[in-house]
Parts: sequence; structure tokens; C-alpha cells
Amino acid sequence: MGDRGKMRLGAYFNPTGHHVASWRHPRAQKDAHVNIKHYVEICQTAERAKFDMVFLADSAATRKADIEALSRSIQFIANFEPITLLSALAMTTERIGLVATASTSYNEPYHVARKFASLDHLSGGRAAWNVVTSGSSVEALNFSRSAPYPHADRYKRAHEFVEVVTGLWDSWDDDAFTRDQESGIYFDRDKMHCLDHRGPNFQVRGPLNVPRPPQGWPVIVQAGASDEGIELAAHYAEAIFSPHLTIEAAKPYYDKLKSSMRKHGRDPDHCKVLPGLSVIVADTEAVARKDYDFIQSLIHPIVGREILSTMLGEMDLSKYPLDEPLPAVLPPTNGSKGHYDSILEMARRENLTIRELGKRVAGARGKNVFVGNPKQVADYMEEWFVKGACDGFNVMPPYIPGALDDFCNLVVPELQKRGLFRTEYEGRTLRENLGLPRPQSRYVQASRTGGTGASAAE
Amino acid sequence: MGDRGKMRLGAYFNPTGHHVASWRHPRAQKDAHVNIKHYVEICQTAERAKFDMVFLADSAATRKADIEALSRSIQFIANFEPITLLSALAMTTERIGLVATASTSYNEPYHVARKFASLDHLSGGRAAWNVVTSGSSVEALNFSRSAPYPHADRYKRAHEFVEVVTGLWDSWDDDAFTRDQESGIYFDRDKMHCLDHRGPNFQVRGPLNVPRPPQGWPVIVQAGASDEGIELAAHYAEAIFSPHLTIEAAKPYYDKLKSSMRKHGRDPDHCKVLPGLSVIVADTEAVARKDYDFIQSLIHPIVGREILSTMLGEMDLSKYPLDEPLPAVLPPTNGSKGHYDSILEMARRENLTIRELGKRVAGARGKNVFVGNPKQVADYMEEWFVKGACDGFNVMPPYIPGALDDFCNLVVPELQKRGLFRTEYEGRTLRENLGLPRPQSRYVQASRTGGTGASAAE
Repeated sequence: MGDRGKMRLGAYFNPTGHHVASWRHPRAQKDAHVNIKHYVEICQTAERAKFDMVFLADSAATRKADIEALSRSIQFIANFEPITLLSALAMTTERIGLVATASTSYNEPYHVARKFASLDHLSGGRAAWNVVTSGSSVEALNFSRSAPYPHADRYKRAHEFVEVVTGLWDSWDDDAFTRDQESGIYFDRDKMHCLDHRGPNFQVRGPLNVPRPPQGWPVIVQAGASDEGIELAAHYAEAIFSPHLTIEAAKPYYDKLKSSMRKHGRDPDHCKVLPGLSVIVADTEAVARKDYDFIQSLIHPIVGREILSTMLGEMDLSKYPLDEPLPAVLPPTNGSKGHYDSILEMARRENLTIRELGKRVAGARGKNVFVGNPKQVADYMEEWFVKGACDGFNVMPPYIPGALDDFCNLVVPELQKRGLFRTEYEGRTLRENLGLPRPQSRYVQASRTGGTGASAAE
Repeated sequence: MGDRGKMRLGAYFNPTGHHVASWRHPRAQKDAHVNIKHYVEICQTAERAKFDMVFLADSAATRKADIEALSRSIQFIANFEPITLLSALAMTTERIGLVATASTSYNEPYHVARKFASLDHLSGGRAAWNVVTSGSSVEALNFSRSAPYPHADRYKRAHEFVEVVTGLWDSWDDDAFTRDQESGIYFDRDKMHCLDHRGPNFQVRGPLNVPRPPQGWPVIVQAGASDEGIELAAHYAEAIFSPHLTIEAAKPYYDKLKSSMRKHGRDPDHCKVLPGLSVIVADTEAVARKDYDFIQSLIHPIVGREILSTMLGEMDLSKYPLDEPLPAVLPPTNGSKGHYDSILEMARRENLTIRELGKRVAGARGKNVFVGNPKQVADYMEEWFVKGACDGFNVMPPYIPGALDDFCNLVVPELQKRGLFRTEYEGRTLRENLGLPRPQSRYVQASRTGGTGASAAE
């Protein structure tokens, strides 16, 4: 299996955990959203367990919801901003990757290129950018727009945005800065490059005012499961946070993505597909199940419906009866296609009412949940991995630090015993640990193609 | 003198130092621009010396210059981005303030409000925002614009920008997050506020998705010396990085600002005016002067003219003879009015040729330079302070770490001996150390004015 010999694991940290009622759990840090000591501790825990990376989601708005439901939630309300947070955490960790989400919709590519390049330098080559588009109406309203860009426009803009950002990262050759105190030459003028991008959405001259990142480019992460999302991922993504709930749904997606990568001339090993997985684990299944039932019991019913509504793309569900299934025909979503399809598939498979579906979805916010003892969890993860439905997982502890500690103490050693997960980091940079190549600068490539043989920078 | 009893000191850090040839000095860290260990050390040095704050300038572009001059410079070429850098440094310092520059021209107020609020939480209340506008053509070209906004438009936009940012910082009352695990109420719905700003440049709904910063608002710093700059400062600024080179020029500015603050109903003690001061100090004046001559000798002549041209607002100086003074009539600047006036005043006072002026200005990039022994430096700083021309200084070590170490070891103890500078931090937050009040939320003020008597949050 070559590179697929080991699983890759991300640690996806919402402040108090992934579960919507996480903050009410006695083993969660309820003031996590502004508690930097908490983040230092959980990142160090994940690093001791040899996780590939810490993953932070993002939204540039407080979640839209009825105030009754909102005031009972912690997710996407008010917390640290991810790039500043990861910059701080770069100083208190040494090996673990640092993945921040930043949207292509209401940002400028120069700012985004700059901040991630800076984070890569601060962390010695451990930065990754999770590229998303913004489909929520509340984000639009914070950026002088009355509505989000339509889905197709968002993805066109995202493509161009990524093109500009990666171009800016190549502004300086790796060995551009000679700093010769004697001659007074600080950099080699032939190794500075102006991008001079002129596209439909952006015109950006460059150069970026940050030297080329230690990783060449920070790792590019993506989460889209729509056709446009897969297309973007096949082009650029080096890790994918995917939404599927079953091997049956995950496998065709995995195969489609990898074959699409081949079409784009990319090695399919160079993108790691990591489905989200929320695990409640205990020494016995009975204890784990009891904990699951307990945290589910903490969900307020109206929070359930509200989260369901948000995950379906801000769909108004108040007009349907709570104790009947969703209607057979629902309006299409302007939100995440991946969530929409997964949730509807689950609702129909299990014939759930809106109340039941709300509670089910709200807990893990539409993501996959597994409850069991360490062996059961490892069996489950191994099956996905061996059947070629994923390259690892983005692990979403339902409450933090408790369920993170449990996963690290109980599941990681079991995976390591089976040879499925590393016992030591392979390298210093996130690329080295993920087994990803370091991108060569487009300018070095161009000069080689041109036969000049000059300035090989890798 | 009340609050004026002690000087306030900022440490303005360009990567290798303020002097244009700093990176060639043997006591500079020549790879400082991407060396995080260097920044950790110099911030800890400044903190041991009890500086109020570390100050980072910014530009969202590589400086515009002829490649011949550019390739001999380090300033504004390629380095860490300031907000990510200060977020990292928040973890390796405990008391010193962290001032990052962010422009109002090519940013969104929601992003800026969010990042500084996050930095304030990360650092336990030590963040400050240096509000600037962008007048350089190279920045515009990185943000899909062909030219910068005209001066007056920039300041109108800046006013509205600051209004939105401070409004967003008040989104949540200080005690909004009750986090009552028993009842399941995470925040008090009456303590969340939507800004609903609708102005000519921005429409921003809010709330900000970060809780109210520990300082209420991060400290607002400003640097403009134009009429529009003074007006903006009189409204909002709590510290000012001012450009004057002589007490005679500084005193009227100081008085004008403080009286303008009174007109706006503000206590003049609540804005600290800090002129930039680049100090070369040694045990004897002779040794200091030798060091100054040495670093000046490292300036390449074309670097001198290029920096002069930039500081006058990208004015083309190549058409004037190098060995004659500037012509009597120069075109007006679209850049910094403060720099323009200061430089022209110096050039005429000393009848300098363009070559001489270039070298003079390039060294400290238009800022004030003082060379002497510790007593002479302290005398000079004391005179400015006692004569009411400033409230302290933004200290710009010409090369780092060498000249920073010298200032901390030789000048700070002399100032402390004279009772002019603190020997221990007064508080935990930057506001406490600067003697600035913590802003009360506009919503708490409104509810008090309305006589409800509810939710006193301070």
C-alpha cells in the first residue's frame, strides 16, 4: 500500500468540543472559547498522541439562529479567531500541523497569502490553509453585501483566489535572500518575482511581502463535496475533510476524487481524504453508550431543529410538523452540498422525524459518530481505511478535553499496536509528516523548462 | 503633573532595526525578518526593561523602489506579518503591550475588529491597533486597484472604519457569557448587540464573533500628522506615534492635539503622544558617535535617494541634481504629511543637498536621531518631556539587538534613577500600564442614559 501504510489523523477542535451540548458536559472546559491555556493544553495533548494536525473551522459571523436556540449554543457564537490562535499555538507546540480555515469569499488573496506564509515561518513549516467559500447570509451581512455569492460564482472566485495565493507564495525563490553584509546586497534581484495577476475577480501585482514559506506552500486543505468542490480539490487539495457517514457513501467519493486527480496529472497519494469522525470511547461499550446518551440528553429540542435548519443551508423548518419526517421534496440548498446530501440520506434511511433528525444531527452537527470500546473504535476506523474509503480521519472529540483525552489514551495506542498509526513524527514540517511533496516554485520550473538551467531552488 | 509623572516608552521594531543599513551592522540579526527566536528575545529584552509596548509598522506590499536600491534594503521587503507575529509573541511575554499596524484602506472592519479582539484575549489585554491609511501605489496594486484612494477619502473611510470596529468590539457585554451548565443557557440574550451599521463605505450587521476584549477595546494608536490625522486622533487615539524632529515642531502639535481632544470632550491625559526617537548610545559620546558614523557609512548613495523619494510620497527625485538642494517648490504629497513637512523643514534649516538629505533621512528614515552617552540621551528625552512636547517616546533602535540592548542597559536605568520611568509594571493590561481608562460599552451607557439601571458591565 506504500504511502497508505499509516492513517493520517487530524484533531478538529471546536472550543468545548464538537457536540452541540459539549459545553454542558462536566468534562468540557466551559470557558474554552477565550481560554488560551485550554488550547495550549489540548494541542499539546494531540501532539503527544502524534496527531498530524490541529484543525480549526471558521465562520466570519455569529451563527444565524433564533435567539432562543442561539443563546443555548457555543458553536460559532464568539471565540478566538483561528489564524491568531494558531499563531499563538505555534509557540507552544513543535511538531503538530496547524490548519486554519479562511474563506475566499470576503477576503483578499494578498492578506490570506501573507498570513498563512507568516504562520508557516512562525511554526517552522507547519501551516495549512483550509480553503472554503462562504454561503451563509449572516457572513455576507458583515461585509457590506446583502446576500452571499451564488454557489457557482463562489467556486469560480475560489479557484482564482487559490491561483493568486499560491502564485504569491512563489514570489521569492527559496534562496533569494543572500544577506551579504560585505557587498550590501540583501537579496538576489533575479529571485524576486511579481505575479502580475489579472483575472475576472482579482488583479494582484505582488510580490508577496513574506519570503517563500518553509514548506514552499502551506498545505492546502479543502472540504467541499459538491461537483465544484471536487473539481477544486482535484486541482489543489492536499488533504480533504470529507463529510460522509458510511463507507458506502465515502468509497465512490474517494475513488472519484483520486481519479480526478490523475486526470489533472497529480499523484493520488498527494491528497489525504479524511472523513470527520466523532468518537465516544470508554473501556467498555456500555460505559461509552451511557456517556453518549448522557450528552445527547443535554440537547435542547429547539437547538436540534435550529442546527438541522442551518446545516441544510438556512432552510426554514418551522413550517413542517416536528413529529413527522421531512417532506419528500425539499428546496435545493445554497449551503454545503455535502452536508445536505448526507443528512437527507440518513433521514430517509432511518425514517427519522424532524425532532429525531434534529437531535441526531445537532449532536455531531451532521458528522459521523461512533460509540464503543477501544477495540470497536479501532476496528471501525481500520475497516474504512482498509476498504479504501479514506486515508485517515479528522477526529472531532465531542467534548474537550475529556473525550480528546479518552481518544488519545484508549484509541491511539490500539491503532499504533496494529501498525495503523505512527509512534513518532516522521519529519519536522507538516508536509513531511503527511508524506506530501514540497511544491517547486513556478519560476524555477519555468526557468528549467526554458532550458536555462538557472536557479534551482529546491 | 499627575499622570505625566512618568514617560511612556514604546519599542518600535523593524526586523534588523530602524536604520536602513541596520542589517549590515555586526550587532544586528541579519535574518531577523523570518527569525522568530530573534523576536522572542528582543520582546523579552524590552519587557525586562519595562517598556510599555512593542510597536510593529506595516505595509501590505514590498516597498516600491528601483531594484538596485531595493535589493540593498531590508525594510518593507519581506518579513513576518505583524498580527500573526504578535499573536505568537503574546505567548512568550507577560506584561508588555503588543501594537500592530493595520490599514483601513484595503481591509474589512469585521476582519480587523476580530483579529485585534482575538489578540487581546490571547494576550490577556495587551493588544493595540495602530490605525493607518494606505497611500502607496504598490499597496493599491495588490488589492485590485490601480491607485490609492485620495488623501481625504482615505481619512473619511478611516473614520467610518474605526467607528465600525469599536462598535463591533461592544457586540457582547462584558458579562454576556453566563455558561450555566445546569439551565443550559450559554449567554444572556439581552447582552448580545447587533451593530447594524449602514454608512457610505461599510454596511456591517454584527455581532462580532469574539467576546468583548479584556481591555473593552484594544488600545487605539495613530500616527497621522495631517489635519485629517489630528482630527482622527483627537476623536479616537489613545497613543500617537508622532514624527517631529525638534521640540519647536513637536510642542505646537502636542498642544493642538490636546486642545482638540478637549473640544471632543476627552481628557487630554487619555492620549499619549510619543515621537519616534532613534538612539545610539555608548558609555562615552565619542564611542557613540563613532558607531553612528560607522552605520551611516554603510548606506549606499542610491538607497539614500530612494528612501527620500519614498518618504516624500513616491516623488520622482531623479530629475533633480544630486548635489543641489531640493527645488524651492515641490509637488504636494499624497503620502504622509507628517514626514513630508518634517523632512522639508530639516532640508531647508540645514541647507542639505539631495545626496546629503538622502543619507540623513535614509538612516533613520526621516525620524529623529540622537547620539550620545547615557546622561546626554536622558537629558535630551527629559527636556522634551518636561517642556510638554511629548508624553514619552517610541524608541526605534537603529540596529537590533545591539542598539536595543544598549538602550535598555544604559538609558533605561538613567531614566529610572531620575524617576522618569517605571521600575515595575503598574498593571496587567496595556491600558492599566498606560494609565488609560477602560471604555464602557456603548450599550451599557445607552441603558444607563435611558434610566433602566440595568447591566452595569464595568
